[in-house]
Amino acid sequence: FIESAIIDLHPADIAEIIDELDAQEAKYVFSLLDDEQGADVLMELEDDVRERFLKILSSKEIAEQLEQLDSDDAADILGELSEDIQEEVISQIEDDEVASEIVDLLNYDEDSAGGLMQKEFIRAQMNWSVMRCIAELRRQAEEVEKVYTIYVVDEKNELIGLLSLKRLLFASPKSLIEDLYSNKKIISVKAHDTKEFVAQQMSKYNLESIPVVDRQNKLIGRITIDDIIDVIQEEAEKDYQMASGISGNVEARSSVFRLTRARLPWLVIALFGGLLGAQVIKTFEPQIALHAMLAIYITLIPAMAGNVGVQSSALIVQGLANNTLRTTDLKTRLTKEVSVALLNGAICAALIFTFNYIFYQDIRLGVTVSVALMTVILFASFFGTVIPLILDHYNIDPALATGPFITTLNDVVGLFVYFAVSLLLY
Amino acid sequence: FIESAIIDLHPADIAEIIDELDAQEAKYVFSLLDDEQGADVLMELEDDVRERFLKILSSKEIAEQLEQLDSDDAADILGELSEDIQEEVISQIEDDEVASEIVDLLNYDEDSAGGLMQKEFIRAQMNWSVMRCIAELRRQAEEVEKVYTIYVVDEKNELIGLLSLKRLLFASPKSLIEDLYSNKKIISVKAHDTKEFVAQQMSKYNLESIPVVDRQNKLIGRITIDDIIDVIQEEAEKDYQMASGISGNVEARSSVFRLTRARLPWLVIALFGGLLGAQVIKTFEPQIALHAMLAIYITLIPAMAGNVGVQSSALIVQGLANNTLRTTDLKTRLTKEVSVALLNGAICAALIFTFNYIFYQDIRLGVTVSVALMTVILFASFFGTVIPLILDHYNIDPALATGPFITTLNDVVGLFVYFAVSLLLY
Ligand SMILES: [Mg+2]
Ligand SMILES: [Mg+2]
Ligand SMILES: [Mg+2]
Ligand SMILES: [Mg+2]
Ligand SMILES: [Mg+2]
Ligand SMILES: [Mg+2]
Ligand SMILES: [Mg+2]
Ligand SMILES: [Mg+2]
Ligand SMILES: [Mg+2]
Ligand SMILES: [Mg+2]
Ligand SMILES: [Mg+2]
Ligand SMILES: [Mg+2]
Ligand SMILES: [Mg+2]
Repeated sequence: FIESAIIDLHPADIAEIIDELDAQEAKYVFSLLDDEQGADVLMELEDDVRERFLKILSSKEIAEQLEQLDSDDAADILGELSEDIQEEVISQIEDDEVASEIVDLLNYDEDSAGGLMQKEFIRAQMNWSVMRCIAELRRQAEEVEKVYTIYVVDEKNELIGLLSLKRLLFASPKSLIEDLYSNKKIISVKAHDTKEFVAQQMSKYNLESIPVVDRQNKLIGRITIDDIIDVIQEEAEKDYQMASGISGNVEARSSVFRLTRARLPWLVIALFGGLLGAQVIKTFEPQIALHAMLAIYITLIPAMAGNVGVQSSALIVQGLANNTLRTTDLKTRLTKEVSVALLNGAICAALIFTFNYIFYQDIRLGVTVSVALMTVILFASFFGTVIPLILDHYNIDPALATGPFITTLNDVVGLFVYFAVSLLLY
Repeated sequence: FIESAIIDLHPADIAEIIDELDAQEAKYVFSLLDDEQGADVLMELEDDVRERFLKILSSKEIAEQLEQLDSDDAADILGELSEDIQEEVISQIEDDEVASEIVDLLNYDEDSAGGLMQKEFIRAQMNWSVMRCIAELRRQAEEVEKVYTIYVVDEKNELIGLLSLKRLLFASPKSLIEDLYSNKKIISVKAHDTKEFVAQQMSKYNLESIPVVDRQNKLIGRITIDDIIDVIQEEAEKDYQMASGISGNVEARSSVFRLTRARLPWLVIALFGGLLGAQVIKTFEPQIALHAMLAIYITLIPAMAGNVGVQSSALIVQGLANNTLRTTDLKTRLTKEVSVALLNGAICAALIFTFNYIFYQDIRLGVTVSVALMTVILFASFFGTVIPLILDHYNIDPALATGPFITTLNDVVGLFVYFAVSLLLY
């Protein structure tokens, strides 16, 4: 009775169950599924679970699964295997056309449009009649689970237009495709475009599929929105993690070892920053020895600097990621950022001056800490704005500038400014 | 010649141009567009630009624009207006059916499935023949730009199945819908489901549209994937900003005032945390006066605690957001987190001990700082894991626990631990 309960579920749900089982149980559940279901479930498994699972399948069995999958998914799974096994599996694929499509897709960088595209799409010649088109469609559509838009090509396979299924359904059987299709504003991507660019285009133009062309504008594939959603989510997760000092796209479910490796580098960077800070404090030790009260704000100033820096860089990184920020308007950006810093800085400085007076009745310390705070907030805003823009300019991921990196930099700068101001006032 | 260059663009591109123009120019460009184009452009404008723009249109003009839009977009725009103007605009909409659809949509919470759904979808009765269905479709499809899936209902308008256009296209005209449609695994959402839940469902099951039903399972609308992409991106941006100490969904293009308001609250929280930290340092001042070298690590320890806390909470917040984390497995989670903390803590403690020895040859200080560091990393991991889970348990957005909040807490705890350890060892 477990069997029937499970095999009636959606592959995504079956995959969720298998993700939680051990290898033995997983294999048993998997054996209950028919071929197509099995392949779909395989695709929906968590990466690490699938990897383990593929290890216990023979290359013949893997080949059988791949034949059931869409070409993009088949290529992705194949790409996860070692080269030896890849070759073995390919030679075991019975349908030659399927095999060559998959092999072709393996050529593209996984972060490019080519790495996301599939060979399953519907193509119509512009000189076809509607009747002929429907007949051809019937043949092509067997492999294409979701049609979305029909791509209209000329005799050289160059993409020249789009046709919706709806239009085709209501057209008279005798009319010609060339009289039905739309050739205005065809949005397509090139195979070497980045996946981020594809995501931007599909999101901006509200597309559920986008045709992929090669450098000669020949139609070679399409990308569907479900895979773009995965791209968008992965990108967002990566940036979020980067901002939190985690690298390498781990999850809560990753192993202790992977989690440690993802987090340690940032901690070591922060540690060196801390040592640099210690050195700054050490240099000003005589100053602290003379005026011990100065020590009480040694944590507050760098902490505030760090927070402001993170705020500033976050807006830049986000603006760059979703393309709402043009890298050219650095001046406008900086002016605005400085205005915000002046406002926030003035308010925070006034607050700290007041509280310092209430608690410690020490005006000189109050002036020192509020001037330092104001200065540090300005510096931190400046660095937070400029550093991601510079990184982006040199094609380095600006998200690198966020998180521990920017806080550590600002910690050191903050300490330095604090003591410099105190030297002027004491 | 500008005119023809602009009006041939996609509405999303025209909107991007208008976003950058002043009110006069914008109005001129807008006047060049035909009705449908104008409405689509209106929809694609940045929120603040659209708001300004609507102010210079009469309620008659607004009503005309709304009639051109999909019902979900019309309701969203209407919802942005004041109640007086809303009523005026509604009374100016000529088509009664359109008006009542929009008014109906206004009833739903904008963060629910109802707030995202549109009334444009294709509905088929299960007792129809294919021929009748195509004829009815032709009528219904006028208003439905993209069909995606046909929803099959019974005589009570309850959703009982799905039918793809492809299936319909290839079916013989005499066959009945009830023999064609699929009634297995129909995935739908209820009008009161949250938009995050809708996004999860559509992403998990790879859907490009999802039917919305009411509490009696009656079909009342559908949600399309383009709007869900917006939900996913907004959610990701909100969480990213929260983690960076920015609230209220601002962008780099927001006004100085809005940016200040979004950032100040977090800075004030951090400031109070800093004052608390100052109080801790003040309490241990005699200790610093005795052993001045202790002062040099007053910044490093809290900074490291902050970084570790952010790392821990980020993984939890993310796991909760994408539903890969089950709130029940707190114990597994904590064990793993503590293991990672022990590993990272041991490595960092060893590093700081070594460097401290190299620079300052002070073993007692070295032991103090490394023991404190180890302890602080363990504490920070614990807080970083537990606090978001607790917030989530009480239905508070766990993202609140990230960023300045968790760093500030850990700053104070870090200082306290450092001095406590020093008291034991000095
Ligand atoms: Mg399949
Ligand atoms: Mg691929
Ligand atoms: Mg969009
Ligand atoms: Mg795919
Ligand atoms: Mg997929
Ligand atoms: Mg990125
Ligand atoms: Mg800090
Ligand atoms: Mg329209
Ligand atoms: Mg709405
Ligand atoms: Mg998916
Ligand atoms: Mg919509
Ligand atoms: Mg939309
Ligand atoms: Mg959230």
